[in-house]
Amino acid sequence: MKTDEQFMQSAINKAKEGIKQGQTPFGACIVKDGEIISCLHNLVFENMDITAHAEICAIRETCRRLRTIDLSGCIIYSTCEPCPMCFSACHWARISRIVYGARIEDARQFGFNELEISNEVMKQIASSPVEITVDFLRQESLELFRFWGESGQKAY
Amino acid sequence: MKTDEQFMQSAINKAKEGIKQGQTPFGACIVKDGEIISCLHNLVFENMDITAHAEICAIRETCRRLRTIDLSGCIIYSTCEPCPMCFSACHWARISRIVYGARIEDARQFGFNELEISNEVMKQIASSPVEITVDFLRQESLELFRFWGESGQKAY
Repeated sequence: MKTDEQFMQSAINKAKEGIKQGQTPFGACIVKDGEIISCLHNLVFENMDITAHAEICAIRETCRRLRTIDLSGCIIYSTCEPCPMCFSACHWARISRIVYGARIEDARQFGFNELEISNEVMKQIASSPVEITVDFLRQESLELFRFWGESGQKAY
Repeated sequence: MKTDEQFMQSAINKAKEGIKQGQTPFGACIVKDGEIISCLHNLVFENMDITAHAEICAIRETCRRLRTIDLSGCIIYSTCEPCPMCFSACHWARISRIVYGARIEDARQFGFNELEISNEVMKQIASSPVEITVDFLRQESLELFRFWGESGQKAY
């Protein structure tokens, strides 16, 4: 049985692949019953789709692969705290647990135009049942922003 | 020059088309410089994609058609207040104005599993610059839920 660390490392590795291909430094991996169902990096530039955050891409891919819109029992590992769009997509998909590395405030510091509402605040205001594990492999996740910064790309 | 009423009516008509095809009662229309760029209904069931809300579909289509991820200057007309996922997608896309009909609380009353955070609250917490026009053709938009209810479909 793989561990949370291994699943998050898969998301981190996918984000690195994305950076090398000119994408932004975000990766997400969705797991059900100990198996990775999808693992994708941000595809906003590649797909010319502002909604193609890593988490949204992974949720769409998981729906397609599992042939359902109900992802109950799934865990999402994200290298950065899901933005409110992605957090809400997790809610609609009924994802059971969110595990994230860096924080929304970190992404903002690196120039991303984040709506600064943390997952904890979203969960609290809306009484969402999702479990959240914060700051998981935070240093390794933060390193992605530095690696991306060295590539000379711009945030949006 | 078409009016706000006409653009919202296009979104309402599109939602009706969706209901007839077994989709949920939501439509959205994106306009730039007085021209409709995209007008789509919810496609969650059709695409087996939990993220395929009308607004997300319209934003994706607009990015594709205008070949940009920057939708500054665009207005979105939505038959229902965008959920936090869709509101945040509008933010990322830098949509200038949101015009909506029914409210998130209405959708909840009809059984949809909405995160109950209004656009006004999202805007306030995150200091978003988007303009919001509320309760626009509200009665006509509410009528969509009733029309959908008569079709015997279930909310999710």
